Amino acid sequence: MSDETTPTPEGVRAAAERIRGAAVVTPLLENEWLNERAGGRVLLKAETLQHGGSFKFRGAMNRLAKLTDEERRRGVLAVSSGNHAQGVARAARLFGVPATIIMPKDAPAFKIGQVRAYGGEIVFYDRYTEDREEIGRMLAAERGLAIAHPFNQLDTIEGQGTLALEAVAQAAAVGARFDAFIVCCGGGGMAAGCATVLADLSPATEVMIAEPEGYDETWASLRAGKRLKADISRKTLCDALATPSPGEIAFPILARHVKGGFTVSDDEVAEAISFAAKYLKMVVEPGGAAALAAVYHRKINADGRTIGLTLSGGNIDPSLYATILGRFG
Amino acid sequence: MSDETTPTPEGVRAAAERIRGAAVVTPLLENEWLNERAGGRVLLKAETLQHGGSFKFRGAMNRLAKLTDEERRRGVLAVSSGNHAQGVARAARLFGVPATIIMPKDAPAFKIGQVRAYGGEIVFYDRYTEDREEIGRMLAAERGLAIAHPFNQLDTIEGQGTLALEAVAQAAAVGARFDAFIVCCGGGGMAAGCATVLADLSPATEVMIAEPEGYDETWASLRAGKRLKADISRKTLCDALATPSPGEIAFPILARHVKGGFTVSDDEVAEAISFAAKYLKMVVEPGGAAALAAVYHRKINADGRTIGLTLSGGNIDPSLYATILGRFG
Repeated sequence: MSDETTPTPEGVRAAAERIRGAAVVTPLLENEWLNERAGGRVLLKAETLQHGGSFKFRGAMNRLAKLTDEERRRGVLAVSSGNHAQGVARAARLFGVPATIIMPKDAPAFKIGQVRAYGGEIVFYDRYTEDREEIGRMLAAERGLAIAHPFNQLDTIEGQGTLALEAVAQAAAVGARFDAFIVCCGGGGMAAGCATVLADLSPATEVMIAEPEGYDETWASLRAGKRLKADISRKTLCDALATPSPGEIAFPILARHVKGGFTVSDDEVAEAISFAAKYLKMVVEPGGAAALAAVYHRKINADGRTIGLTLSGGNIDPSLYATILGRFG
Repeated sequence: MSDETTPTPEGVRAAAERIRGAAVVTPLLENEWLNERAGGRVLLKAETLQHGGSFKFRGAMNRLAKLTDEERRRGVLAVSSGNHAQGVARAARLFGVPATIIMPKDAPAFKIGQVRAYGGEIVFYDRYTEDREEIGRMLAAERGLAIAHPFNQLDTIEGQGTLALEAVAQAAAVGARFDAFIVCCGGGGMAAGCATVLADLSPATEVMIAEPEGYDETWASLRAGKRLKADISRKTLCDALATPSPGEIAFPILARHVKGGFTVSDDEVAEAISFAAKYLKMVVEPGGAAALAAVYHRKINADGRTIGLTLSGGNIDPSLYATILGRFG
């Protein structure tokens, strides 16, 4: 099936061809101390090392590559908590396309600085009182811009699914197959892309999601059988995952494939970040550490199994990072 | 030529076969912001992701693999500031060999903890007043232990050279060839191993070394044409590079191949560590960041050139790391 709302394995493979050479084939890491703690084998897809510091560049690049010349001339618009913003701004710069980015005014300063460094024009909004989707639609209509959605768009989802395509091959290269694969989950785009690939290539793999406390509405929605809304007045360390609701396109995919969900607290995420620094030598942002936190805090039974997970991003403000590391010494 | 004091390209290739599967093939990273700052292409060999958190495991594994059954039964002894200690302790554990490690009592607590976690028995010495080599020789003789030297041993040097073997192939895979390759330098073992490989595979590559202020006696020795001694009463952030003198085996190799040396200050190293966290998403220890500091602070002309360098290790005490990151925010 190939329409505008159902990601397919073929679509992900085409995306992989489209972004080849432009995106980093990020390494699949393994660490003995994490294995020991988990009681199984843990393989971490280090999207922290992706261009723009997160997996978002994959979807953004796939979206930009598919725009028409006319669309590229007019420009692209993205709404984003910061990582997708960087991905789109960077991809747009590669194609010489102007990028307008709508970001929450309380986005991490590092993310704001990086979007500017890539040449994106930022429009700020208040994520507690304003609807970013509506602002995005209005501005896009007004300026005639193509929207690059952070998760609710086929091109984005299929682009992000390419990480699972790589991960399955990388696991096979070290003699492993994922018994479970845990994806950090905001709007569910990456999870849907990965689930599409895994259902095709590795149907025995249980796809699972990790969400932060207060924004675990995707797993709640999956249990309820309908899309629920998070209370967006809640604060969370995981800025990248503070999405009000799972995406419409992602939802049916997730409903079909996701076998479990984990909720992680700010403290659990902070401890996982500290572990990643000490033992993995990897800087991970809160939203990128949710799946690691689930494994580190033994929310999943990993005994004798192989667990894959996404270290989805590393864009954390240095001051917050120093505070977290200082706290867990 | 194949004797006990001259590393050869064939010896490095044999070491690569010996450690295959046991050592991590670490990624060769590239970052657009570093390229922009340097004015050229910078490719970083991320030995931070090696087992034990530094390149040292390569040499240790090669050494342990070559011991006789009788030697393995008796056990191995290493003198080390901490990274080689971890490498040897980990390799020894793989072979079921008892490891005695002589470490300075002011070694980073993280390194001490890791050596213990790998099951090594630690004997402390005072690096400002005692001669670690002498302590090592005495203890080895007394207990009948095989010595795994951190840099002045053929097996160590050839094992460490395997990283350059990988780096040359990884660079070729992204269409690059090193115009220069900068190695973080303590006793010069890694530099000698890398120089041996590069002279063979990529003779146009200029091999260079980066040393910390106060312990830049290797480059001074090369200029003087004889092995000089550093003033070991000096403090440095780069604990891993605080070696009194270049190794006897490494010295003639370095004299033949090394084309330049860079001295980096504690402040320059700290800023490079902060840059690595923010942009490379990589935790790097001071001694592992010396070569990066040389490039970051533009001590080498990288205009239009491709510079390779070692990010040699990531074993830094969390409290020091948090302090450095907090300072450069």
